Amino acid sequence: MESLWEEVRELSLGNSVERLESPPTPLRFLRDFVSQNKPCIISNAISHWAALSLWSTPSYLSDVLTGSLVSVHLTPNGCADALAPHPLHPSSLCFASAHVQLTPFPQALNLVRQNPENQRYVAYLQQQNDCFRTEYGPLKSDCDDHIPWASEALGCRPEAVNLWIGNHLSETSFHKDHYENLYAVVSGEKHFILLPPTDVHRMYIRQYPAACYSYSEGTGEFTLELEKPERSVPWCSVDPYPSPATKDQESSKFPLYFNGPKPFQCTVKAGEMLYLPSMWFHHVRQSAADGGCIIAVNYWYDMQFDIKYAYFNFLQSLNYQSICNPTALQSRSEDSDSTSSAKHLSNGTYANATATNGMVMEPIQDSESEDE
Amino acid sequence: MESLWEEVRELSLGNSVERLESPPTPLRFLRDFVSQNKPCIISNAISHWAALSLWSTPSYLSDVLTGSLVSVHLTPNGCADALAPHPLHPSSLCFASAHVQLTPFPQALNLVRQNPENQRYVAYLQQQNDCFRTEYGPLKSDCDDHIPWASEALGCRPEAVNLWIGNHLSETSFHKDHYENLYAVVSGEKHFILLPPTDVHRMYIRQYPAACYSYSEGTGEFTLELEKPERSVPWCSVDPYPSPATKDQESSKFPLYFNGPKPFQCTVKAGEMLYLPSMWFHHVRQSAADGGCIIAVNYWYDMQFDIKYAYFNFLQSLNYQSICNPTALQSRSEDSDSTSSAKHLSNGTYANATATNGMVMEPIQDSESEDE
Repeated sequence: MESLWEEVRELSLGNSVERLESPPTPLRFLRDFVSQNKPCIISNAISHWAALSLWSTPSYLSDVLTGSLVSVHLTPNGCADALAPHPLHPSSLCFASAHVQLTPFPQALNLVRQNPENQRYVAYLQQQNDCFRTEYGPLKSDCDDHIPWASEALGCRPEAVNLWIGNHLSETSFHKDHYENLYAVVSGEKHFILLPPTDVHRMYIRQYPAACYSYSEGTGEFTLELEKPERSVPWCSVDPYPSPATKDQESSKFPLYFNGPKPFQCTVKAGEMLYLPSMWFHHVRQSAADGGCIIAVNYWYDMQFDIKYAYFNFLQSLNYQSICNPTALQSRSEDSDSTSSAKHLSNGTYANATATNGMVMEPIQDSESEDE
Repeated sequence: MESLWEEVRELSLGNSVERLESPPTPLRFLRDFVSQNKPCIISNAISHWAALSLWSTPSYLSDVLTGSLVSVHLTPNGCADALAPHPLHPSSLCFASAHVQLTPFPQALNLVRQNPENQRYVAYLQQQNDCFRTEYGPLKSDCDDHIPWASEALGCRPEAVNLWIGNHLSETSFHKDHYENLYAVVSGEKHFILLPPTDVHRMYIRQYPAACYSYSEGTGEFTLELEKPERSVPWCSVDPYPSPATKDQESSKFPLYFNGPKPFQCTVKAGEMLYLPSMWFHHVRQSAADGGCIIAVNYWYDMQFDIKYAYFNFLQSLNYQSICNPTALQSRSEDSDSTSSAKHLSNGTYANATATNGMVMEPIQDSESEDE
């Protein structure tokens, strides 16, 4: 397994996200990136968008969208679709979704722009249901309907176009999408951590009970409530930015993440576009120099469910936990059980093939969660 | 593993090789076939080749190549680069290469055209070293230098172009190539059996000692001699056309092949072209209606060593033998040992993770053998 993680980097991905100075031809995009399932950052792909100049003026947005109701996602800490202490058993975790409310845009924008440190909530204007072409329809002419070279390469138009307006407190936890994603930053900066699908076991995907924040305007307080009927969501367990106090603990819980090959990290600035390949795990933070809004538009294109996807499903179905290379992976997960019946594989690594030790990796299901 | 074999067929490959009535655009070829590692047969891709009409006249070929020396591969039975009884231990097998001799073309062509049933040898004119552009240079203008839509899609010109002239007795055993292959049939028909790289464990790739036929013109006899220094070659163990007498034995030796999903079978006729994707296992037989020559030209383009290749290497590194589904795979391999420490994986199949039972699958090395 470790050889796989290394080999895909050595053969194809390298150690950093490739940068292109201008949009690739459709053929090059398909051959060098989509077909290889390899990300890239593209400059000068959206230079002609009116959005780049217009959207930095908040009054422009409020004027154009004065009569629009938009979806606002409210959380106490900026972490929606993320793990949070279980409301009934705080020593365990649940999967927490945001409180979502439809709000007139000018008021919604104020929620994002108010000095967020003084607020008891973090607001993120987003909805991954093609919201740019629905809720934000009046802004349509400020951007392209689609990315022409990508549409030609992929042979289709985007399945969904989503708008994201937030501040530096909003953060998106590790997850993957079943789409080819072209992610254009209009204002501010987005900071991505990326891992290829081959690294699936490093994400420690586990089942968590689904819960949802509920915000009371009266008290200004959030409550976190389990969904009814109960359902569980498979989600990545790793927080790539643990606090100094929990760093050691997190490292020992998730050694394959913290001690494996360095994740890809990149910053996408205003005017740049990230090609985020289907099935890549990604974590997103954001910042703006002036403490202002971070605005992005992303285009989701249908992916091909081909041999790569079949290989991924096979890989994910393997139960892989413990490792025999103590120099590469010094910490042992509290999850792994060195006394269980690990077998020595021919490639020199250990794999635990028992299904009865409580550590079976469940298949990842498509969830209808909010993904960046 | 069985789920992987099925899933790649359900998602992407279907149950037969797709046929295109005309050459695809470069984008379509890349998107729908190369990127998906999916074969297709293309009609009307070489209709403009002079070869299609000229090469069916043997005297044309002999006239154009009257002064050319070409590589002739001689075997006793038409099986070069195939398993044969070990010369010293006939109860085991070795990997046997052809006797190769440079012969003036007109004489070489006669060796192929003579009534092969009366001969003590089978001759095959071929050499996988770009022979079409070297040994057969005078025929150059009868075909295209490259396949334009493929070169544009793949972003390069062919690494090698090879010519094949043989009769119905020549057969190529299962193997794979590290190239994207465009295989054009000019005369006769080629009958392919194809398996995707996901099916690697169904091929029972094992190490065999390398040997080479030596033909004596004096006695008209072949001797099969081990290479010196000794080397071993990883080769597919499966003969997809066992004789009625050995069918049951072969089925029980190679149950994953004979009882797994149906291999892809297709016939490529004169004037048609097969896109044979990199890393696909293929077995080739040939026929000609009039008992004449079968002539083909194939273009090898460099493949991309990308995430698909990394997944393949990972898959191949897994030792997979025994199966728990008695209905899908009723025969048990004599190689598999049901008493060894098989473990129940979470996907419901059994895998044997021991490396000490003499059944370790060695990684496939690139061999310099003659591959169709």
